[in-house]
Amino acid sequence: MNQTNSSWGGRFAEATDAFVAEFTASIGFDQRLYRHDIQGSIAHATMLAECAVLTVAEKDTIVQGLLAVQADIEAGTLVWSVALEDVHMNIEAALTDKIGTVGKKLHTGRSRNDQIATDIRLYLRDAIDHLNGELTRLQHALIDLAGAEADTIMPGFTHLQTAQPVTFGHHLLAWNEMLQRDYERMIDCRKRVNILPLGAAALAGTTYPIDRARTAELLGFDRASENSLDSVSDRDFAIEFNHDGALIMMHLSRMSEELVLWASAQFNFIDLPDRFCTGSSIMPQKKNPDVPELVRGKTGRVYGNLFSLLTLMKSQPLAYNKDNQEDKEPIFDTIDTVAGCLRAFADMIPHIEAQREQMHTAAAGGYSTATDLADYLVKRGLPFRDAHEVVGASVAFGIVERKDLSELSLEQLQQFSSLIEADVFEVLTVEGSVAARDHFGGTAPNQVRAACLRAQVFLAQR
Amino acid sequence: MNQTNSSWGGRFAEATDAFVAEFTASIGFDQRLYRHDIQGSIAHATMLAECAVLTVAEKDTIVQGLLAVQADIEAGTLVWSVALEDVHMNIEAALTDKIGTVGKKLHTGRSRNDQIATDIRLYLRDAIDHLNGELTRLQHALIDLAGAEADTIMPGFTHLQTAQPVTFGHHLLAWNEMLQRDYERMIDCRKRVNILPLGAAALAGTTYPIDRARTAELLGFDRASENSLDSVSDRDFAIEFNHDGALIMMHLSRMSEELVLWASAQFNFIDLPDRFCTGSSIMPQKKNPDVPELVRGKTGRVYGNLFSLLTLMKSQPLAYNKDNQEDKEPIFDTIDTVAGCLRAFADMIPHIEAQREQMHTAAAGGYSTATDLADYLVKRGLPFRDAHEVVGASVAFGIVERKDLSELSLEQLQQFSSLIEADVFEVLTVEGSVAARDHFGGTAPNQVRAACLRAQVFLAQR
Amino acid sequence: MNQTNSSWGGRFAEATDAFVAEFTASIGFDQRLYRHDIQGSIAHATMLAECAVLTVAEKDTIVQGLLAVQADIEAGTLVWSVALEDVHMNIEAALTDKIGTVGKKLHTGRSRNDQIATDIRLYLRDAIDHLNGELTRLQHALIDLAGAEADTIMPGFTHLQTAQPVTFGHHLLAWNEMLQRDYERMIDCRKRVNILPLGAAALAGTTYPIDRARTAELLGFDRASENSLDSVSDRDFAIEFNHDGALIMMHLSRMSEELVLWASAQFNFIDLPDRFCTGSSIMPQKKNPDVPELVRGKTGRVYGNLFSLLTLMKSQPLAYNKDNQEDKEPIFDTIDTVAGCLRAFADMIPHIEAQREQMHTAAAGGYSTATDLADYLVKRGLPFRDAHEVVGASVAFGIVERKDLSELSLEQLQQFSSLIEADVFEVLTVEGSVAARDHFGGTAPNQVRAACLRAQVFLAQR
Amino acid sequence: MNQTNSSWGGRFAEATDAFVAEFTASIGFDQRLYRHDIQGSIAHATMLAECAVLTVAEKDTIVQGLLAVQADIEAGTLVWSVALEDVHMNIEAALTDKIGTVGKKLHTGRSRNDQIATDIRLYLRDAIDHLNGELTRLQHALIDLAGAEADTIMPGFTHLQTAQPVTFGHHLLAWNEMLQRDYERMIDCRKRVNILPLGAAALAGTTYPIDRARTAELLGFDRASENSLDSVSDRDFAIEFNHDGALIMMHLSRMSEELVLWASAQFNFIDLPDRFCTGSSIMPQKKNPDVPELVRGKTGRVYGNLFSLLTLMKSQPLAYNKDNQEDKEPIFDTIDTVAGCLRAFADMIPHIEAQREQMHTAAAGGYSTATDLADYLVKRGLPFRDAHEVVGASVAFGIVERKDLSELSLEQLQQFSSLIEADVFEVLTVEGSVAARDHFGGTAPNQVRAACLRAQVFLAQR
Repeated sequence: MNQTNSSWGGRFAEATDAFVAEFTASIGFDQRLYRHDIQGSIAHATMLAECAVLTVAEKDTIVQGLLAVQADIEAGTLVWSVALEDVHMNIEAALTDKIGTVGKKLHTGRSRNDQIATDIRLYLRDAIDHLNGELTRLQHALIDLAGAEADTIMPGFTHLQTAQPVTFGHHLLAWNEMLQRDYERMIDCRKRVNILPLGAAALAGTTYPIDRARTAELLGFDRASENSLDSVSDRDFAIEFNHDGALIMMHLSRMSEELVLWASAQFNFIDLPDRFCTGSSIMPQKKNPDVPELVRGKTGRVYGNLFSLLTLMKSQPLAYNKDNQEDKEPIFDTIDTVAGCLRAFADMIPHIEAQREQMHTAAAGGYSTATDLADYLVKRGLPFRDAHEVVGASVAFGIVERKDLSELSLEQLQQFSSLIEADVFEVLTVEGSVAARDHFGGTAPNQVRAACLRAQVFLAQR
Repeated sequence: MNQTNSSWGGRFAEATDAFVAEFTASIGFDQRLYRHDIQGSIAHATMLAECAVLTVAEKDTIVQGLLAVQADIEAGTLVWSVALEDVHMNIEAALTDKIGTVGKKLHTGRSRNDQIATDIRLYLRDAIDHLNGELTRLQHALIDLAGAEADTIMPGFTHLQTAQPVTFGHHLLAWNEMLQRDYERMIDCRKRVNILPLGAAALAGTTYPIDRARTAELLGFDRASENSLDSVSDRDFAIEFNHDGALIMMHLSRMSEELVLWASAQFNFIDLPDRFCTGSSIMPQKKNPDVPELVRGKTGRVYGNLFSLLTLMKSQPLAYNKDNQEDKEPIFDTIDTVAGCLRAFADMIPHIEAQREQMHTAAAGGYSTATDLADYLVKRGLPFRDAHEVVGASVAFGIVERKDLSELSLEQLQQFSSLIEADVFEVLTVEGSVAARDHFGGTAPNQVRAACLRAQVFLAQR
Repeated sequence: MNQTNSSWGGRFAEATDAFVAEFTASIGFDQRLYRHDIQGSIAHATMLAECAVLTVAEKDTIVQGLLAVQADIEAGTLVWSVALEDVHMNIEAALTDKIGTVGKKLHTGRSRNDQIATDIRLYLRDAIDHLNGELTRLQHALIDLAGAEADTIMPGFTHLQTAQPVTFGHHLLAWNEMLQRDYERMIDCRKRVNILPLGAAALAGTTYPIDRARTAELLGFDRASENSLDSVSDRDFAIEFNHDGALIMMHLSRMSEELVLWASAQFNFIDLPDRFCTGSSIMPQKKNPDVPELVRGKTGRVYGNLFSLLTLMKSQPLAYNKDNQEDKEPIFDTIDTVAGCLRAFADMIPHIEAQREQMHTAAAGGYSTATDLADYLVKRGLPFRDAHEVVGASVAFGIVERKDLSELSLEQLQQFSSLIEADVFEVLTVEGSVAARDHFGGTAPNQVRAACLRAQVFLAQR
Repeated sequence: MNQTNSSWGGRFAEATDAFVAEFTASIGFDQRLYRHDIQGSIAHATMLAECAVLTVAEKDTIVQGLLAVQADIEAGTLVWSVALEDVHMNIEAALTDKIGTVGKKLHTGRSRNDQIATDIRLYLRDAIDHLNGELTRLQHALIDLAGAEADTIMPGFTHLQTAQPVTFGHHLLAWNEMLQRDYERMIDCRKRVNILPLGAAALAGTTYPIDRARTAELLGFDRASENSLDSVSDRDFAIEFNHDGALIMMHLSRMSEELVLWASAQFNFIDLPDRFCTGSSIMPQKKNPDVPELVRGKTGRVYGNLFSLLTLMKSQPLAYNKDNQEDKEPIFDTIDTVAGCLRAFADMIPHIEAQREQMHTAAAGGYSTATDLADYLVKRGLPFRDAHEVVGASVAFGIVERKDLSELSLEQLQQFSSLIEADVFEVLTVEGSVAARDHFGGTAPNQVRAACLRAQVFLAQR
């Protein structure tokens, strides 16, 4: 039989409707917070004892009881109850079962409103640290591979048209830059996560002589929050975290798109190991790049979670509203999704095999060194815009002749500009082209090697 | 030990990475499709037998085997395997375990690409029918309550400022109109769901002499799809369904917002039964309208699911890509969320108690009959714009005097227009005001009763 | 000097703040509705005269005045005023300037709340008809090209890996199916757009003896709306329209993605005419597929507009709120964007040149006929799953030998199954493969031709 | 007649299609970047001269020419050309018109790809500084008002039910906390905006001996970007900025919701000055809180812009694609919207008039001091959970008696617990309640005053 929750039922005349009890309960998903809930309760009890709201003996009993409840949960012996609504009430009830009346003193000076805000922040802080670990692992993989492929020449694309030759190492370092920003954004987000809301109680603070700075210290928070109303209603940190996760997924979707392209028969720039691919139930020849495809597909779910949370908070009056119970599942799903995708990538990237010959051949086609010819002319005195026109005409001629610029004869080239001399062929090779982009941020192999070094030093300082 | 899936592993040199196997498997969520998967397989086998691709005996063995597998699943005795990736392969493997080699013939002339598309369409068709049932139930509740409250006068708001008196029944019928459109949109969506993709095979059709029209007939589909490439890659129907669900949630969020407002001490327009409310762990006096708040909060998750799916499909080249595996969880979550919210509302609405006195008092304040005074003047010959100005000045006077228009004396009113006579007080009552809006769609009580009747007839014809 | 709007300023003690006047005015974007606003006003005045609320002479004066105002607007001589806030007040003020006091009678029995709802519905109805015209034009282009390319063989992809040969015509018809659904969705949406809100007045209806069915008839609406509160607050139709537009963009993004891929040097499946491409300011050789890229990019803005509107309506209490002023710019932007993209595609598609030789070569590689070999074995009695394994092993062998299946000798093939005989080579050609998929929805050339015919008949019946 | 853009047309055989030229041109919206484009060009030319790629005389001519072009633009005499596509080409063409051939040398060593990335970053940096100024102005307004209302008691709500008394000043400081985070997020975003992409050229760097650190210094950037491919394709900063703007709008939507509620007849907690309100064209008595309503509505558009950009970047391969042209309009719209909304709020907030009496009356009802009674009992030795039950029963009794707790007699209260004594009535007043929440972050008036002081010191240090 369904009963009204004994934690608040004093004024109620009838029991909660059974479907409503299930519909409004959060225990199905917030049990995941149990460890952080207990961590927060221990700090709360410790502070209360220091402030003489609890006796030391009461505090000790409570702490021992909470650790015993945690042990039960981890042993799988605690039965979660929907009637008890959420992780907080389930743990408190288990505690009181275990230690008796003193368990009922734990909730002194706090409310579920500030308690859940504390739990999520503790949980998210751990999640950020875990994701940043995975980001770092993936960055190491990229930098290592970039170092190994610093001299590998591939076509650089704009508009998916061959633009200029670049090095594969340079391309991989572009990915690393994306992740580097992701890491930094997470660090910035962590500053706003790592603030203690406990002590805000329901919304207005409490009448007990609490020491919030002490609780913050015990839990490793940077400081206590400034305003109780804001503390129980703020979910900015969850949105910001989801946004940072959405950018990680956006970056992984871009890498995935390129991996899928490169693994196609048409590009054939890379080979992925069999163990990261799957096959087809009908087409026996298929070897599908499932991991990048699935990661690309999972981008949508993290974008969706972000929008869920933004919608959730739109127009909510202060302070806490039941709507906010809906904050947890998107966060959890974002954490799981981003962590899984980063792990899959960090595992897979070291095993990508560049098909160097195919890359080189592709880089050498498509008039990829046309810009080099223009620069050659500029260095001989032609204004850039005029040089651009000369080369455009040369390319049009080459297309008709079905020859790349480097395959045209000196005479053919000279008919477009008398400034062209025999040394032009040096700048028309892909090796010459990449080597010439030799400045900070450029694609020249020695710039790539220097960039790898900087990146490694950077990671080492984390 | 992890093994490569035997359904496609022929060309693979190494086993799938254990984490990759788990990461790419869908069995964790697509097992929910088991009944529709088996339904589709039975129709497929039946058609294959009719087309002589299978013998009748083979078909019978397969059908019996599938029913036995279904019984196992429903008895909870089938163990789902991650190594078998998805619901299709799990069922096929269980079938082959049960009936031997002939089970391996079931997949003739189809692929998982058209199979999953068929499963989702069957599943969604049922979901639409279920949601439409819940919509209808909620509409009945609203119309019944509207009939009972056809004469109850409350303030109508624009900009949350008192605008004109309306009847509570009229307000409830406005909600009914929203749901009526939701129902119609679902019916329109169902037309596009109820089309058979099976026979598209992997992407190009199959070399067996299949009869797709027959399979469509067996499964109750309106027709077979026109194009095999489109059939395996199309997820429009899932997006359209999610959009229709998002509009339902948007409507429920609007109703929820009003219910929460009305249940506040400041409005006090309604009373919600205790069994649809919950209390506070810290504030003993609280009775919170959790159901509408939570429903309002759940709006975000269905919006988010819509955006997940739109993101998923953006820029996907034909035909099937692994990304599409990500279509299922948003759909399932949308179905569950919308169904739960509709159920909670359909259960709760009949028990809302209008606080009629409080509503009437509120309607009578705020100069709610000012428009009626303007109309009165227009009917005496003043152009509407001039009448508007006269009334504006009267209201300004009333605010200073702290009196409503109906509380001003005839002399006071006449100082703003000599057209005003003693009969003006009839139009300044809230009863006179609502009764005067007596046209199709207006708020007059007899219009509300007529609208209830039309709505009931309409529902009866479903 | 800024003044309070004379249409509502009667009760106000101070003029509107200048920035607030500008910030809250909508005339900057809603002037675009002028023609539909006047169309609605003429119908309103006509109905009022028929109901004897206006005299016939007054109505005639108003109608002539409105037409004169329209002429002024189209001649560019009307100066829009921010102080007059919106298109309605600007037109009414211009009317009164022109015809004097009788102009002030036009607003009798209506409000801007029902007026704007009417205007948008009239505007959207026209927009839907225009978009459906463009959809039809693009469908014709696709079907024509599909007919011309019914025999052109290209690789069909799943996971962007070569899967099975398909015909280019079949691929283009897949695109046509997407657009066909878009057209049907727009038709369904139009039913919900084409309903008259006028007569709802501010929110509750009006005290004048109006005939809403007559106004509906005059404006070509299917019927008058059922409920006045709903009429002024409903924006479902705008969201549904934006959703339908988002699906069109999603489809165009998919086509764009493929066009960009196909135009790359690596695929080289198509050539786009120079006049649909642009170049680079630095790389003289570039010819970029700007149109599909830009269309793909514009997908985001229509998705964004959809989410703007969903957010806008979330949790809005009845009836009209100022928030709703924000509905127009997203709708307008969606209309312009979708119309422009459809136009660009309808212009460009007929000029796509298939590189048939390159397509054929690509289709013949990648073991694209492996499924055909499996089907061959099944037809000789092997269960499908066993046949799949045999072919998987053959492909693995071919990869080592660097030979396609059709390049292996009979002996080599027979080492994997003794069922293979000399006739196997017929099914291993791409021509044999596509021709064999000869059922409704399959890729066989004669199926493509039949599908083109059906599609053309279908379009002809619009 | 339409012509092919002369900046890249060398290889093209036909002129751009007229509609395509218009469809793909960005000059309609990117002209807004003119000042930052010229700023970037001047720095580029200066650096080129220092690196001897240009002569000092050439540089001087270019700089003077650019300043003259800027003067023309600001005087409105430059005619923007669609055929010249974008702001860069329009300015370069105007420059060359003015100074001749040397103008063609400006584009040496750069591309439009790195140029536009530089322009947007410069523009966004200014926008962030402007928004942070408006945020600061609004924060000052809130803190000033909070100081003035530090003793004003109002009901604190959870679930929109009266929870506990709070001070109005405390509530306003909760808003300030939201904005404080917004400010900090913008500062964090600015770090990632303030990086120089110029020198990346098209995608790979350039062959000229450029000094990117010098250009960065000239433009006030913190450093040059690390990787050329990333530099031209990265739009993270635009998304992050839009996200930060979305959170600002979310916060303003929450404030707006409360302002609209408070301005309703039912709450009547505040009065908004007439000059921030508008009226109704039909209801003469209306005074609508348009500004907060419109701001709430504008939330959707900034959310929408965020999702436009996230969609835009999903799955984009490196490096630059035409899709990215679509980044600008969402950013511009977000800047304008957020700036306008902040301005409207910063102007309006100082003029909000608290209806203190009404607030106090509301705070005193609804059993708002029930928690205080529970705390009273706890301090007398009852465990919190038991105290909660006692008070719940007292409230249930009070509801039946239609009396607040403070209106019950000592005898009546004592029937629920013998621990209650005469001093209980001190904790049952709203003044006692707020004063008792006297810890960091609590609602006690002296805590509010201390928080105001901290906040002012904090702002002063910006």
